[in-house]
Amino acid sequence: MTIALAQLSAEVQAAVAATRERVAALHAELPRNQLVVWTAGNVSERVTLPEGSEVPGLLVIKPSGVSYDELSAQNMVVCTLDGAKIVDGTPDSLVPSSDTAAHAYVYAHMAEVGGVVHTHSTYATAWAARGEEIPCVLTMMGDEFGGPVPVGPFAIIGDDSIGRGIVETLSGHRSPAVLMQNHGPFTIGTDARAAVKAAVMVEEVARTVHVSRQLGEPLPIPQQSIDSLYDRYQNVYGQRSHG
Amino acid sequence: MTIALAQLSAEVQAAVAATRERVAALHAELPRNQLVVWTAGNVSERVTLPEGSEVPGLLVIKPSGVSYDELSAQNMVVCTLDGAKIVDGTPDSLVPSSDTAAHAYVYAHMAEVGGVVHTHSTYATAWAARGEEIPCVLTMMGDEFGGPVPVGPFAIIGDDSIGRGIVETLSGHRSPAVLMQNHGPFTIGTDARAAVKAAVMVEEVARTVHVSRQLGEPLPIPQQSIDSLYDRYQNVYGQRSHG
Amino acid sequence: MTIALAQLSAEVQAAVAATRERVAALHAELPRNQLVVWTAGNVSERVTLPEGSEVPGLLVIKPSGVSYDELSAQNMVVCTLDGAKIVDGTPDSLVPSSDTAAHAYVYAHMAEVGGVVHTHSTYATAWAARGEEIPCVLTMMGDEFGGPVPVGPFAIIGDDSIGRGIVETLSGHRSPAVLMQNHGPFTIGTDARAAVKAAVMVEEVARTVHVSRQLGEPLPIPQQSIDSLYDRYQNVYGQRSHG
Amino acid sequence: MTIALAQLSAEVQAAVAATRERVAALHAELPRNQLVVWTAGNVSERVTLPEGSEVPGLLVIKPSGVSYDELSAQNMVVCTLDGAKIVDGTPDSLVPSSDTAAHAYVYAHMAEVGGVVHTHSTYATAWAARGEEIPCVLTMMGDEFGGPVPVGPFAIIGDDSIGRGIVETLSGHRSPAVLMQNHGPFTIGTDARAAVKAAVMVEEVARTVHVSRQLGEPLPIPQQSIDSLYDRYQNVYGQRSHG
Repeated sequence: MTIALAQLSAEVQAAVAATRERVAALHAELPRNQLVVWTAGNVSERVTLPEGSEVPGLLVIKPSGVSYDELSAQNMVVCTLDGAKIVDGTPDSLVPSSDTAAHAYVYAHMAEVGGVVHTHSTYATAWAARGEEIPCVLTMMGDEFGGPVPVGPFAIIGDDSIGRGIVETLSGHRSPAVLMQNHGPFTIGTDARAAVKAAVMVEEVARTVHVSRQLGEPLPIPQQSIDSLYDRYQNVYGQRSHG
Repeated sequence: MTIALAQLSAEVQAAVAATRERVAALHAELPRNQLVVWTAGNVSERVTLPEGSEVPGLLVIKPSGVSYDELSAQNMVVCTLDGAKIVDGTPDSLVPSSDTAAHAYVYAHMAEVGGVVHTHSTYATAWAARGEEIPCVLTMMGDEFGGPVPVGPFAIIGDDSIGRGIVETLSGHRSPAVLMQNHGPFTIGTDARAAVKAAVMVEEVARTVHVSRQLGEPLPIPQQSIDSLYDRYQNVYGQRSHG
Repeated sequence: MTIALAQLSAEVQAAVAATRERVAALHAELPRNQLVVWTAGNVSERVTLPEGSEVPGLLVIKPSGVSYDELSAQNMVVCTLDGAKIVDGTPDSLVPSSDTAAHAYVYAHMAEVGGVVHTHSTYATAWAARGEEIPCVLTMMGDEFGGPVPVGPFAIIGDDSIGRGIVETLSGHRSPAVLMQNHGPFTIGTDARAAVKAAVMVEEVARTVHVSRQLGEPLPIPQQSIDSLYDRYQNVYGQRSHG
Repeated sequence: MTIALAQLSAEVQAAVAATRERVAALHAELPRNQLVVWTAGNVSERVTLPEGSEVPGLLVIKPSGVSYDELSAQNMVVCTLDGAKIVDGTPDSLVPSSDTAAHAYVYAHMAEVGGVVHTHSTYATAWAARGEEIPCVLTMMGDEFGGPVPVGPFAIIGDDSIGRGIVETLSGHRSPAVLMQNHGPFTIGTDARAAVKAAVMVEEVARTVHVSRQLGEPLPIPQQSIDSLYDRYQNVYGQRSHG
């Protein structure tokens, strides 16, 4: 089933337009932070709908197979959470990212999540290929992840097993990032910007811990210190960025 | 033997001009994706000739020894598939890439190939130097390569042994990339853009699997899942790019 | 306690303005040299105050959580050495970097230090995560560091333990860089530019020695040669840069 | 002793001016190819003097401690081969690179050399720190280096031991690059551009062979094939660049 954007209320249309601008702009952070090559990787954001909207839930996501240079608010694709495309005047040939079902599953099952990012960033994917979590041996991991970065199950495109794997791994976990086995990282946040930040940070810690372990064993951080770092970062500093 | 471009039909000249534009533009992807240094690496494309053309087959390729900043449609070199240069007004000092014979051999023996790329990209060449195929341990490898990336024989410039090695390794193989031993990757595609994408992807998977294996053994993906990923990517998504 | 910049003397205001310009400009060197991601990392400089100033000591530092693209002289934050913010017309929402206390501690206890830099640069942080000093096996390390780069204690934000760890490790040491365990490098200099240079150089030597050691053991440099390199670089060449 | 440029013949002045332009422009290749950080690294070129010139030999080289962004033809420094600065109107504070004596020694003792480059590029310096030559396991090494890249002796600034080490290692050797132990690569060429190319290529092969060896042993190339690659590249292709 497809829905025409033009038939939705002006408020919904405005919310969609603003989300598209944000999501298009945030995609530029992926190549800039060397998290993606070619057309791989995608960012999505849940549209904040007015109370009692005529649609149950919408997300904005990257079109499939379009290069990063060509992304704009205009070619971001709008979908319902069951993955149906919203018809909106973008070229008919643009279809949502092949990972849309996984993003939609996360939004449908984690009410607090407003943004999702997926990449194949090198170091995070390298840990994922071994099915090995990243141990918490850096103070910045204590701040940002509150412990190790967990691994999610092996799952391939075709049913909702990727989405389920993400949700089951991250529900109740401090980490906003999961390393899907043999696949790559998915990150979540209260909005798309927070999820992009988590995608940048998971690659950073994946790389640094990898490099550290190449020549020996990094020193563990006591659990109490990890808790202290995480509490301070999340509570004293709230949603503020590191630095 | 040399042929003058000006003596060919207007249709052939137009096809050559369009191919030169594409090939020149695609060369920019090689440094941008950090696949080449200095003047190394080259992209070629087969010219799609009108039925019953007066020439049996043409390719457009990078001139030898010209830096990436100076490449333009004007200095792309046109050759017949037996490597003879088409005289066309470009400076006499421009000669086709020293790898032209290998490209031409591929076009002459693989009718479905419309584009060929050669680089010395670091990680792919590192596997090639050990003569070791890249195992299929990433879902994106299932999508793009349908299995491991194979190694081709040791061969040096001077006869058609490089071209033969590429053709013998890739004929009937799912992978669009071959790692020529001690040398580097060659990739093929239905057109030059697809071959460039394969060159980007082979370096990406070479790097990620390398990094993963540095700290342990990546988990294998069951053959059935590889088949499923490859079938879906090639058949459901067709020639569409990942993401 | 907060102090209003406008109430300070014109001379102090001019010194603050000049320092802000320098510190804002130097922040650009951190992403440019790939020492930071997202909003991590920070540069500070001690304000050179006129004799008998009404304030005992001031520093200029990066605001917390602002991205590198958005940094300007206007949004640099001014603080006293006890970390109190100087009210100066910048948006109220801008607060100094969460690492300000550590910077301030260094200025308060090391009179010769005029600039401090902190990053989580990958290779330096990797050594820090193992709590392992970088051995002096490169002539450029002899020049710049005069020996190994030392490790500082494990310490977390919340009291002055990070600042104390930096001061205790670097006091009387030739190296302008310390690798704080599980955390990352802090560097010092006579001004912010010298501290930024040290941050660039510590990552460079951390990376090069890491890479060298991956395939064997780097050859030691005799102590006498290290002394000779360091003396010449510091005394003959003075504060001049390498190259 | 210093000599004033203005007192030399118009022909010499013109040759100096042209060399300065080239050397300034070529310095941009060092950061662009990620061979240097901060102000490290330097390129020089021998000035081609008219027959019977009043000066025995001149070179143009980078000023010491000037950042890459600020280099221009105007601030390149002119020296005699015994290292005396030519007074020429550039600011008095500009002095030639601290590596000038090594460059000058090479020009004085290798008549065929017209350009010299020195960097601390990461992978080449990592091999140098172990005092280990780079084995010839890549066809591009056969082309460019004609065999392994050799190691030069440990030597420090202060006398002519660096220059002597370069000359003794490279005289009669096919390789245009030497890895000075614990120090870094020096490369030579018939002109500065050829020496810069060799600096780019030595880092490329140092990195690729390093990466290859991290996971096993690269396959050797038979000596006969190395000879064949080198002969063809040097003789058939002459000074032409690879690609």
